[in-house]
Amino acid sequence: MATDSLWQRFQKYFLRYDDLGFTLDISRMRFPDGYFEKMRPKAEKAFAAMRELEAGAIANPDENRMVGHYWLRAPQLAPNDELRAGIVQTNERIHKFASDIQVGRIAAPDGKPFEHVLLIGIGGSALGPQFVAEALGTKRDAMNVFFFDNTDPDGFDRVLERIGDDLGHTLTVVISKSGGTKETRNGMLEAKARFEKAGFDFGRHAVAVTGVGSELDHYAESNGWLARFPMFDWIGGRTSVMSAVGLLPAALQGLDTQNFLDGAAAMDEHTRQPDEMQNAAMLLALMWYYAGDGQGKKDMVILPYKDRLALFSKYLQQLVMESLGKKHDLDGKVVHQGIAVYGNKGSTDQHAYVQQLRDGVPNFFATFIEVRKDRAAERFEVEEGVTSGDYLQGFLRGTRAALYEGERDSITISIPQVDAFQVGALIALYERAVGFYGSLVNVNAYHQPGVEAGKKAASRILQLQPKVQAALSASGATAEQIAQAIGAEAEDVYHVLQHLAANDPAITSSGGPPAAEKFSKTK
Amino acid sequence: MATDSLWQRFQKYFLRYDDLGFTLDISRMRFPDGYFEKMRPKAEKAFAAMRELEAGAIANPDENRMVGHYWLRAPQLAPNDELRAGIVQTNERIHKFASDIQVGRIAAPDGKPFEHVLLIGIGGSALGPQFVAEALGTKRDAMNVFFFDNTDPDGFDRVLERIGDDLGHTLTVVISKSGGTKETRNGMLEAKARFEKAGFDFGRHAVAVTGVGSELDHYAESNGWLARFPMFDWIGGRTSVMSAVGLLPAALQGLDTQNFLDGAAAMDEHTRQPDEMQNAAMLLALMWYYAGDGQGKKDMVILPYKDRLALFSKYLQQLVMESLGKKHDLDGKVVHQGIAVYGNKGSTDQHAYVQQLRDGVPNFFATFIEVRKDRAAERFEVEEGVTSGDYLQGFLRGTRAALYEGERDSITISIPQVDAFQVGALIALYERAVGFYGSLVNVNAYHQPGVEAGKKAASRILQLQPKVQAALSASGATAEQIAQAIGAEAEDVYHVLQHLAANDPAITSSGGPPAAEKFSKTK
Repeated sequence: MATDSLWQRFQKYFLRYDDLGFTLDISRMRFPDGYFEKMRPKAEKAFAAMRELEAGAIANPDENRMVGHYWLRAPQLAPNDELRAGIVQTNERIHKFASDIQVGRIAAPDGKPFEHVLLIGIGGSALGPQFVAEALGTKRDAMNVFFFDNTDPDGFDRVLERIGDDLGHTLTVVISKSGGTKETRNGMLEAKARFEKAGFDFGRHAVAVTGVGSELDHYAESNGWLARFPMFDWIGGRTSVMSAVGLLPAALQGLDTQNFLDGAAAMDEHTRQPDEMQNAAMLLALMWYYAGDGQGKKDMVILPYKDRLALFSKYLQQLVMESLGKKHDLDGKVVHQGIAVYGNKGSTDQHAYVQQLRDGVPNFFATFIEVRKDRAAERFEVEEGVTSGDYLQGFLRGTRAALYEGERDSITISIPQVDAFQVGALIALYERAVGFYGSLVNVNAYHQPGVEAGKKAASRILQLQPKVQAALSASGATAEQIAQAIGAEAEDVYHVLQHLAANDPAITSSGGPPAAEKFSKTK
Repeated sequence: MATDSLWQRFQKYFLRYDDLGFTLDISRMRFPDGYFEKMRPKAEKAFAAMRELEAGAIANPDENRMVGHYWLRAPQLAPNDELRAGIVQTNERIHKFASDIQVGRIAAPDGKPFEHVLLIGIGGSALGPQFVAEALGTKRDAMNVFFFDNTDPDGFDRVLERIGDDLGHTLTVVISKSGGTKETRNGMLEAKARFEKAGFDFGRHAVAVTGVGSELDHYAESNGWLARFPMFDWIGGRTSVMSAVGLLPAALQGLDTQNFLDGAAAMDEHTRQPDEMQNAAMLLALMWYYAGDGQGKKDMVILPYKDRLALFSKYLQQLVMESLGKKHDLDGKVVHQGIAVYGNKGSTDQHAYVQQLRDGVPNFFATFIEVRKDRAAERFEVEEGVTSGDYLQGFLRGTRAALYEGERDSITISIPQVDAFQVGALIALYERAVGFYGSLVNVNAYHQPGVEAGKKAASRILQLQPKVQAALSASGATAEQIAQAIGAEAEDVYHVLQHLAANDPAITSSGGPPAAEKFSKTK
């Protein structure tokens, strides 16, 4: 495309929200003429579905739930007083609690203020908080936030080692809607044991963010935890960062939660308008649809040129992939939908895999995120008249150009700086883009049925373990023999045996091929 | 596939290296019967090419270079005495230098030992060190390692803020083969300015890892830096972690660099054998070829079930994608090769995007990495007879099963624990698998020509900046007007103007559409 017409195309497809300082440039996506007209019927349906969702429809039919994350930043839009009050009161309670903690009104057992937060959660109960903590944190934060976000024993040990002797000034925030998520339950038990070993009453160090009346809620109440905050049924994990899930840790950290919500609300207003050419979220969704032919044929590579946004792609992996990666559409047809997402940050990634993006398999489209302001601190030049930030921007623009020359499409988002308002706006943009895209491809973007299969299969293995252990003896047996004895699959038993042997010094293996390998247990 | 025959398949395609405690299971890749026979000619060529490479052939023809990373852990295999001596002596010097630093024989200016390392590098000069530091680090490390791995001014500020008043006990390690990498040069200048502002002589805090005779080498020498270590011409960035690039920071951190090299050497021995069924690296390459039809049609999702290995996928993104993502093959044919890589860790990712892996677009294959040992610390049970680690393993096995049920293939690697030996072995495995795969698809896996295009395009933007600034005046001009005046593209000028306006309070914009927006500079 001749440069003149590329400048014309840029002007035509450059959207700006002056109040946000936000811009979206889709000029480097080579959708054909007539694309928006062609997509208009689908876009109309998506707009209509979103209006209904925001008005309180059961937009998550598989779970018979409303989808209410947009109300979290605009409670006045919630469909009834009860919901509205729940949001407003929870936010007030969070604000008060964080304040009480920070000034020491609610103090650590030794009377001093709490200094650290240990957040125990996984998926939506961790990824949003982690992204926000990293994007907005500074040395001036009121509290440091540590995370248990897995069920890795060594992972727990590492975090607790870093907290070290400060355990007494650490506040544990356990986040789980049901309390049933095993990784979170395990992390809680491990943390509790460590507190108790150090002589502390865990309840005096613990806060729950959970569904009202859940197992965890009852547990926290009976054990005298410091506080419990609600997770609403109509908020999904991957869209929960503006509920207590994200607001509580952010408030404890001392971040500007009100501006976080306000930024989201401001972006929401722009992305409600029914003219797709003015609607950044719909434009994103339509660009994703174009890039992947509505079937996720191209991966979404997220390239924020800012260290603070390095965790955005991990956050988006859940938001996009867990929402869109569905087997069935809303009509029950098998569709195997979704869009793969990856990326870290620029210009760093240019020295990692941009070689393939430039020259290799053309199976992606890039999303550059430009942050215009270099730094809060004073200007520093690395060459006369040139700053490190000039290089950062130069590299973004250069990589975009190099990709385009090689016929690799990209979207470019620009924001003024990384602050609470802008991060809230970015999250809101992507939440709605994902919702729109779900409608464009006719899937329920709000449930996650496939996660169960892995959990069930895991249960099968875990239930085997005691039976395998009971079947072990000093004389030794193979996996096949034990499997036969307990009525299980040989390979499952084999893997259980290997894991037991690696962790229990009393259990040994003879080595050899899997069918011949003998496992024994000494007393 | 009936479970009996799945157990048979497992036994057939389960490879174990007893000395390493390493296993590779490819039974859940559904390659057809006869696959290995069909691939034998290609595999033979790959084996031959690798033998020649290890013997000192010019295996990187585009740059007319040998490819010597395997000699780094087995110097006796280097093709001549000079190379061998270079490796051995550098390793001895690293060992001595790290020892001198740790005991304070080379001390900080106040006479106390250095406590922190600030590593300044990007791409291969950072990703390997970051992965190793994270995988092997403990609270008992001799030194903490911080990283400047970008050209983000705010990123520099954040790291320096964390180092805070400890700058005086911080040793800066600048890693760049030529010294020409702008991000690294910028980081060095920013660090230097900060040290000088605090009253320190930067040279007394600085070490270079760079090509002998490079710009950086001369600079370090003239400025009296504490030490310089060589980067050899026959070592590429993404395979440099076992050179001074990785060994120096690892040694300073107090990690077991000898075992790191020994683990790699041990895996190398196994992966030299010409029987592919016994060669884990060749099996990996053949599985990648099968999964993506030799054209990267399926993304490689890396799922280590261990927090310590969370950075492995970022490391592999560079190793795999920068090696294989090539436009031309060795015969000059346009091939657009490569394999996209992403992933974080399990079980965490199950709560992020495994929904899509299970149910969505079938455009990937997974690689599970199982670490058998739960933790170094004492056993802790979360249920009777059940540990957090049992859950971790259960989730891995469960997800593998759930994916397989849905016809999504996976590879499973198992290692005994995460230590220096095992991490070295893992890296060696993937280095060689990538080399083999490069041969299977006939590309040069050892250069990175596409990275230039982005740098050149960035230069174009950067060269514009002073001209744009000079053309600004108090009366205001549009991007088109300035572009015309200085002979540049309007859109390039527009983006430069936006960036200037965001960072220089003297430059303002009128707002409005890009063609009408006026930029002015007040004196």
